[in-house]
Amino acid sequence: MNKHQEPTKNSVWRHWHHDVPNDRMAHLVRDTSRLLARSLQARLTNYDVSFGHWAFLRILWVKDGITQAKLSEEAGLMVPTTFAALKAMEKKGYIYRRKKADNKQKVFIYLTPEGKALKNVLTPLGEEVNSLALDGLSSEHKDIVRAALLHMIENLAEDPIFNE
Amino acid sequence: MNKHQEPTKNSVWRHWHHDVPNDRMAHLVRDTSRLLARSLQARLTNYDVSFGHWAFLRILWVKDGITQAKLSEEAGLMVPTTFAALKAMEKKGYIYRRKKADNKQKVFIYLTPEGKALKNVLTPLGEEVNSLALDGLSSEHKDIVRAALLHMIENLAEDPIFNE
Repeated sequence: MNKHQEPTKNSVWRHWHHDVPNDRMAHLVRDTSRLLARSLQARLTNYDVSFGHWAFLRILWVKDGITQAKLSEEAGLMVPTTFAALKAMEKKGYIYRRKKADNKQKVFIYLTPEGKALKNVLTPLGEEVNSLALDGLSSEHKDIVRAALLHMIENLAEDPIFNE
Repeated sequence: MNKHQEPTKNSVWRHWHHDVPNDRMAHLVRDTSRLLARSLQARLTNYDVSFGHWAFLRILWVKDGITQAKLSEEAGLMVPTTFAALKAMEKKGYIYRRKKADNKQKVFIYLTPEGKALKNVLTPLGEEVNSLALDGLSSEHKDIVRAALLHMIENLAEDPIFNE
């Protein structure tokens, strides 16, 4: 059963081999990212977790109790987006939000036991998608890709347009 | 002037070198994609084009006059998202939509002269971001990364979860 409309195997193949054989790296990275998200989302659906919530849970599993502002920064999402997602996650019972007596400005985010327990359930889904994507690539090439992506991330983080 | 809130160079560096040194490939790909989009978006802003519109324009520059459904598939976006973006692009005068006398079902999308002219203005912005991202990578490694990403795209396009 295909619940997702696109892309199909054929349309992806046609697109990359016929339509844009020499396209820019940015396009390849974006399509890879989109397909990784699609595969993870399809697996998360069974657990009533959206892809957006996954991004926050993944951070909170490592850093339970960080501030909402810090969580937003780590997820690379804007504060209003983070706020809306956290409200929904609180409603589902995965997190709760608290201010501290000595600092009424900051909102701290904590996982509930249910939110914590999702780690062992959902982490294998991410690993499954990762394995599927990398199947058939040599360790050497995987290492080169990881280093190259990190290099690109560092180059882009120093984009002069943001420091003019 | 930094119009964009995050991520800063330091937060990106800290994140990748300290917080998640052994994270999954999916996370690296997503962050790279996000930073590529951020850099392109910052450049497109000066031309009153959103990142979403860019995705459609890029396809139409190659395939002017394709159907709305096909355009949606190529962009990897859902039909309602495509419809909303095209309405906005029509309002800006970049495209127009037409049905044909012999086929009232399909909507065909055409670039206006203004939409066509954007190609020569905007394409260098994409190339600039690409060059910035890849600066310092060897040709050999760039080729390995391109091939590996295409391999991942093909693996993910065949994800068995969509063919159960």
